[in-house]
Amino acid sequence: MGPVEPYPIWKCATRLADGREIIYFDESPGLGREAVKDTRDLGSIADGRASVLRWDPLAGEWVIIAEQRQDRTFLPPAEACPLDPSAPGRPTEIPASSYDVVAFENRFPSLSAAERTQHAAQERRAGGVEPDLFARRPGYGRCEIVCFTSDHDASFADLTPARVRTVVEAWADRTASLSALDGVEQVFCFENRGKEIGVTLHHPHGQIYGYPFVTPRTARVLDQARQYAERNGGNLFDDLVAGELAAGSRVVARNDHWTAFVPAAARWPYEILIFPAERVPDLTLLPDVARAAFCQIYLDVLRGLDALFGSQAPYIAAWHQAPGRAGILGGAGGVSSAGSVEFALHLQVMTARRAPGKLKFLAGSESGMGVWINDIVPECAARQLREVM
Amino acid sequence: MGPVEPYPIWKCATRLADGREIIYFDESPGLGREAVKDTRDLGSIADGRASVLRWDPLAGEWVIIAEQRQDRTFLPPAEACPLDPSAPGRPTEIPASSYDVVAFENRFPSLSAAERTQHAAQERRAGGVEPDLFARRPGYGRCEIVCFTSDHDASFADLTPARVRTVVEAWADRTASLSALDGVEQVFCFENRGKEIGVTLHHPHGQIYGYPFVTPRTARVLDQARQYAERNGGNLFDDLVAGELAAGSRVVARNDHWTAFVPAAARWPYEILIFPAERVPDLTLLPDVARAAFCQIYLDVLRGLDALFGSQAPYIAAWHQAPGRAGILGGAGGVSSAGSVEFALHLQVMTARRAPGKLKFLAGSESGMGVWINDIVPECAARQLREVM
Repeated sequence: MGPVEPYPIWKCATRLADGREIIYFDESPGLGREAVKDTRDLGSIADGRASVLRWDPLAGEWVIIAEQRQDRTFLPPAEACPLDPSAPGRPTEIPASSYDVVAFENRFPSLSAAERTQHAAQERRAGGVEPDLFARRPGYGRCEIVCFTSDHDASFADLTPARVRTVVEAWADRTASLSALDGVEQVFCFENRGKEIGVTLHHPHGQIYGYPFVTPRTARVLDQARQYAERNGGNLFDDLVAGELAAGSRVVARNDHWTAFVPAAARWPYEILIFPAERVPDLTLLPDVARAAFCQIYLDVLRGLDALFGSQAPYIAAWHQAPGRAGILGGAGGVSSAGSVEFALHLQVMTARRAPGKLKFLAGSESGMGVWINDIVPECAARQLREVM
Repeated sequence: MGPVEPYPIWKCATRLADGREIIYFDESPGLGREAVKDTRDLGSIADGRASVLRWDPLAGEWVIIAEQRQDRTFLPPAEACPLDPSAPGRPTEIPASSYDVVAFENRFPSLSAAERTQHAAQERRAGGVEPDLFARRPGYGRCEIVCFTSDHDASFADLTPARVRTVVEAWADRTASLSALDGVEQVFCFENRGKEIGVTLHHPHGQIYGYPFVTPRTARVLDQARQYAERNGGNLFDDLVAGELAAGSRVVARNDHWTAFVPAAARWPYEILIFPAERVPDLTLLPDVARAAFCQIYLDVLRGLDALFGSQAPYIAAWHQAPGRAGILGGAGGVSSAGSVEFALHLQVMTARRAPGKLKFLAGSESGMGVWINDIVPECAARQLREVM
């Protein structure tokens, strides 16, 4: 355990009672994390029913069938929150009596490493051929929870910039670690906030998924970027951000290292994309100055969303990263996508709230045909956000 | 006005006060629809703010920005329902004092023909080239409402098989009419049911969209079908249905002309695909015997969904049809997709309800990365449905 340069974080990885990994990201040294034992009787992680990937031959995409998640903890009372620090007589998922930021393997994972052996054998057999009509694969991968603060009643928008920085370091660290797992193709750091979008635990936390394939969204974006480069010789993301800066009407916040804007073709009533000024494929390659400059602009955006309608906005915050091990391999690109080095890390924040008490639903047009209808003009959304930020 | 052969329906098209078209599908003749006048003072449909299509350069898809819909009628009290028949002193969207099935242009459309002229000019300029980063097009197209019954408190599952047949005739008729509009590339008939998925009017009704492009979902499915044919020489849809029948474990209902099954890679907790035994590209080409045989199997499926948890299930019912004018052109295929004739008409019914009082939400993995996670094993969903059907 030692300081991570250049931002001082003290990281310590240990195990929970059932063998799941837990990683502390402390803002001060000497907290003796190694000595903390999880005293619960949890059985073994291998006991759980495993998830399965099934091939959807109409869409050409993998779907995760995760029956064990149907029984996951659902809106427990505050005094039973499994993400609080442990207290005498009340052991939680975090055995310590306090923490700053902590990540650990999800007890109800959609994807897990328990399926690794079967996965590897099946991958070899498949050999890159398009899956059969009814193809299945083990639900190999990794799902982690990241707690942003031990304060049960806080939200991400309440964090100090220094704490946000610690979270950024944790995201980057987990991206590096999960990318390094053989068979993980893409790492996704995200936060779901608000029971309106199905959050089952109120404690401020996010999640990190290591998927065993390039996700449909990222595959499509990479394909668009490739086509754009062929047509125009430029980088899609660079030109997009430059175009938004030139237009100006949808920019909601900006500093030397980041631009936050409502996309011209926003799908959600209030949707913000946040791009670093210097393009990098993923969080592991984000320079120190950009990490530092991210904290305040992101807090401004989240507080703006909450201020829009005078109450906490339900939102999804999604880090879009290049697949593969761009960072670890020194920019050599994704495993299966030659264009990964051209990908631009960005954060997408979106809320389904379109007015006080009204949510946007993904109904027939969106869910049936994939055609999104947005009632809020993006320039109006940007102006409203600027007015409250 | 005359009977539509071979199923006797009396169709009459007229206009509402603001010029919108309304089409009655009557189960008996001589109701004098032509004489009914809409006496409301509604202004002109051209007065409304128009919608715009904006290009999403990251996804490579059009998004509809429809600001005028933000003000649409939202859960009015039953006595103010605009889909009831008109009564003395209470004119509604339907000027008649009763109706069987009626379709009319939506007063708050996401797409409208008012934009036609501008659309045509812009289409000529675009000339099939990939849109620019910030491309926009007029929101040309057509959006209709279809009322299934004049009974405000009924639901589709309450209809008689004969009424379902009238609805099928209306869907087929509107598919033919909207497909024939210059600039409409794909017709989508669907029903959203339940306030849990955002329905703003409780009266039993569906919608029909005529999109000015091939939808992302259908484009993707056509691409999969084309790739499948190249690899296997067969038809993806035919082989899929044959495979489901052979497996049997996910089939929930079947008759001589239709098969209803939970797809092996279902995305929604309870999702059913209903395919005709004889493949046709769209509703206009569905044979008479198949139209007749559809009514009971669909009612069985809808009643099964309601019976699952003992209360009305929120659902989306989505007709997937080939783009273009396959029917009108005698099977000559879609305007922009050579594979359209190989497409198989099918109905997708899905509910977001995963347990009593619990909904599936499209959160980070689905909304951010396009990766769906389903807690309900499809074979279990099929068994549960069979048990209540």
